[in-house]
Parts: sequence; C-alpha cells; structure tokens
Amino acid sequence: MKIGIIGLGKMGGKIALRLLKYNHEVLVYGHHQDKIDLITEHGGIGFNDMNKFVEKINTHETPIVWVMIPSGDITNNVLIDLGNKLKKGSIIIDGGNSNYKDTIHTASLLKQKSISLLDIGTSGGLWGFENGYCLMAGGSKESFDIVNPILKDLSAKDGYEYMGENGSGHFVKMIHNGIEYGMMQAYAEGFEILKSKEEFNINLDKVANVWQHGSIIESFLLNLTKDMFKEDPELSGVKGWVEDSGEGRWTVLEALENNVSAPVITLSLMQRFRSRKEETFTDKVLASLRNEFGGHNIKKK
Amino acid sequence: MKIGIIGLGKMGGKIALRLLKYNHEVLVYGHHQDKIDLITEHGGIGFNDMNKFVEKINTHETPIVWVMIPSGDITNNVLIDLGNKLKKGSIIIDGGNSNYKDTIHTASLLKQKSISLLDIGTSGGLWGFENGYCLMAGGSKESFDIVNPILKDLSAKDGYEYMGENGSGHFVKMIHNGIEYGMMQAYAEGFEILKSKEEFNINLDKVANVWQHGSIIESFLLNLTKDMFKEDPELSGVKGWVEDSGEGRWTVLEALENNVSAPVITLSLMQRFRSRKEETFTDKVLASLRNEFGGHNIKKK
Repeated sequence: MKIGIIGLGKMGGKIALRLLKYNHEVLVYGHHQDKIDLITEHGGIGFNDMNKFVEKINTHETPIVWVMIPSGDITNNVLIDLGNKLKKGSIIIDGGNSNYKDTIHTASLLKQKSISLLDIGTSGGLWGFENGYCLMAGGSKESFDIVNPILKDLSAKDGYEYMGENGSGHFVKMIHNGIEYGMMQAYAEGFEILKSKEEFNINLDKVANVWQHGSIIESFLLNLTKDMFKEDPELSGVKGWVEDSGEGRWTVLEALENNVSAPVITLSLMQRFRSRKEETFTDKVLASLRNEFGGHNIKKK
Repeated sequence: MKIGIIGLGKMGGKIALRLLKYNHEVLVYGHHQDKIDLITEHGGIGFNDMNKFVEKINTHETPIVWVMIPSGDITNNVLIDLGNKLKKGSIIIDGGNSNYKDTIHTASLLKQKSISLLDIGTSGGLWGFENGYCLMAGGSKESFDIVNPILKDLSAKDGYEYMGENGSGHFVKMIHNGIEYGMMQAYAEGFEILKSKEEFNINLDKVANVWQHGSIIESFLLNLTKDMFKEDPELSGVKGWVEDSGEGRWTVLEALENNVSAPVITLSLMQRFRSRKEETFTDKVLASLRNEFGGHNIKKK
C-alpha cells in the first residue's frame, strides 16, 4: 500500500524501514536530512517540506498518514494541521502515546472534515523492527479494514487487534504501560533483595538468565534484564533515577476516575517519583516527629 | 542415571515421567497406588513401602533421591528420615519450596551423616513436563556435577544453574515467587482498569491475546492470562479469593531482615490477605472515624 509517515525518530524510522521491507510505497516527512536519507536509501521517498509531502499524499486514492511523534501538543497540532491539508476521506494514524481523551477530541474535530483518525497504540520498542510490533487500534472499523495490510506487515504474528471506537487503542496501550511499571518494579525489588543477601553472593546475571529459561516469570522484560546484567551485573554506570513518560500516571488517574483500587501500579509510579530525590520532605517530617515525641536522635545536616 | 523420587503429586509425578522419557532409571515411592501405577506403566519401578524403596536405592553406587513433597515439617521430616536410612555418600535433592533457612539447617544435619543435600528450586508449574523446568540449585558443587545429567534433561534449554552453597537454590526460588506475586498483581490491576472503562466495552480476551504477540509486557504469565480470558472473559465462575503458599511472605520477611524497601511485592502479598475478607476491621474503623469527626454517614449492618 501507499503510506506517508511523519516522524523519523526511534519508532517512526523503524516503522518506515519495516514497511519498505514489506514492499509498501513509503513517503516520509522529517526534519533531519540524515534520517530522511536513510529511508530513501531503502527505497522510500523523502520530504523535508510538509506541504510538498501532503501534496503528494493527496494524489493517492485514499491518503494514509502515520504520525509517530512525541505525544501532547506536538502530536495534537500536527493532527489538526494534517486535517486542514489532507483531502476528504483520508485516514490519519496516531501511533504515538497520546492521551486517549485527546484522541477522542481530535478524532471528533477531524471527523468534521471527513477525515478518519485511527489511534494505534504501538508496543515493541526498538525490537519491533525485527520481530514486529504489537498494535492496539481504535477508530472506525472501516478505516481499520482499509489499513489492515499495513498493520499485518508491521506487527508480530497475531500482533494487531481492533479494540473499538476512537480512544480505545490508546487506552489499551496506556494500561499496557501501567502494567509495565508494576512488572518492572516487581523484578527490580526482587533483584535488590537477592543482592542484599550478601552471604550467598548470588550472581544476578546467572539468576536472570536461568529464570528466562522455563520459569513462571519468564518474559520479554526479563530477557532485557538478563542482557542488562550480563553487561554489567552491578549496574555500576547507572544512576538510580527513573523517569516516567505519562502513561503510567494516566493509568493511575484512570483508576481514580473509575474508583478502581490499583495500589501496585500506583506505587510503582510513586517509587519513580521517590527515585528522583536524594531525600524527601516526608522523611524530614518523620525524622523530626520521632525526635519530638520520643527524643529519638535526628541526623543533622 | 538412576534416581529415586519421593512424592508423586502435581510436580513429582511429572518429573518422574519426564526423566523416564529421557531414559533414566526411575524408582518412585508414593502413597497412592494409581499414581505409582502410572509411573510403572511408563517404565518406572514403584514402591509403596519406604523401607523397600530405600533398600533398593542403597544398592546404587551413589544413591540419589529427589524429594518433591509439600514444604514445611513434612519435607523436613522426610529429609531427616532419609538421612537415617540412606548410605553414606548419598545425594538428596529437595525440589520443593522449603524455606531456605530450614534447608541450611537440614543440610548441616545431613552432612553429619555424610549425606549431601541439594536444594533445587523448581519452577515451570504444570507446563514443565513438556517444556522443561527452570531449576535453581544450591549445595555442594561436587554433588551438583554428579546430578548434572538429570538436571539437564529435566530442565528447559539453559534452564538450570548452580547458585551457590546450600540455601541459595531455595532462596532464589523464593524471590522468583515474590516477583511473581508483583507481576500477577500488576496484570490483574491493569485488567480491572480496562474492565472498569465501560464506555469502551473492551474485550479482555482480545487484549491479552494481542499483548502476548510482540508487546513489551509479553510473558509466560500473560500467556496463561490469555488462555484464561479466552475460556471465560468474565471469570464468572471464579471467586476473588487469593491464597498464598509461603514464598511470597518469606520474600517480604527477607526484605525486612535486610532493610530493603520492596513495597510492591509486599503490597501484592497484602492484597491477597485483603481478598480473603468480605470486609476488614480497618474499614470499620475508618468508616466510624469519618462519622466521629465529620458526621459522615456510616452504613449500618
């Protein structure tokens, strides 16, 4: 099929290359000439001018554009801009991690222009290029059916699914990431307890490796953990400072909105907040209170 | 190799069958004649008399006995009993989920009788028979090397590893289970949030299935979840009452002993405690306190 891709970052660039491998006609728009060149070397058509990119796409019978850029205003603005430029009947795919509420809003704006938005949550990280991605799609079933051949080639075997109306694709991807927070935290805590048992002097590299072969906690994430410990069992070059990029906290907000008790996902997020502080005000309050009521020593700065 | 197996339950019976498949000479001791018969039908030698079982094993050059029975006093007693009956130089494998502190203690008692104990944490559940188990071994390296051919055939490819001195095998298996608690809780919470979003009417079966194909949260546990939702997406036949079988709480105790902050594993355990109560006294206190200080309504029984 013919498809345009906007955004040639870690994900978008790989998606373009994978689609080229499967003989789709891929047009890309991006800012960085070296990334555009990489795509054209592999048979794609590159643009660094948005208007020329859209002009070409609009010659397609049903223009399809995959937008793969950072979520938030950047994505929302590009989607609206495309809505103003693409012809009626076009399909825009937001493959990024947009908040599903934004998605529902943007989809309704685009619908007024007879443009269909598909929200396709995309998992698989940097490995998706080789193994295929996991794609969770929301939007009109008709549009989903039109882009089906693209999703089939882009995904791992059986790795794409229509979830329902607009927002549901990004919603399912959001929960996916929330679960990921909890899983990562569980692994991490387990390895810290292992490491704390100095008497056994356990080799974390060996543990992660053996767990990945036949155990109940075998997983894609553990496979990464295994590689990580193989390289550096002490993680000596890493600072214990953990970022979050939105979807974990949206998952928690969703739990709050729907009165769902999801303490482990919530706590996994908050442990990340904690990781970013050398000391917390909470702990200063606790230390001071212990001193007040019990005369317990406080460590002075 | 020649090996005796005590315990023909869910795990022990399958281990015997798998070793028979790999042409080991397997002697079993158990209480239930139907289970013994199953093993003898597959070429094993069955005993329902412990003394006769041990008598035969003692004719082997290096007697090896795999004990696969419920952890706690049952296992500890059998290990000591075997220690009194097996000849010097024998190797006993405790493949169950014994507490690693028990293991260290029992190993030292057996050592006084010149019998070597290997603690081999065994993961892989009911699927291990086909795919091979994940085996985490503690004890003397010499004994480990002797039983190596058995472990190789019993395990998944690369699925067995020597961890260190006695206790370390069961210790690593214990942490494995603690991590499992956290992972399961993270998945479960995610699916509940998905289900709570009634507007999307998301098909959990489809979600679990697509996540298992190319996503970052792909895992053995998610594969089970997928099968589970396929059978019954509402889990209508299941009561939300979750047991724990020791290793989760030992993991938490270990975190406490070593001053490790492991909140997610801890909370995953405590959520299981909560699941077993229709209402908690905590909640009665909270409801009453809200009434006391704010005049908020309480629901009366």
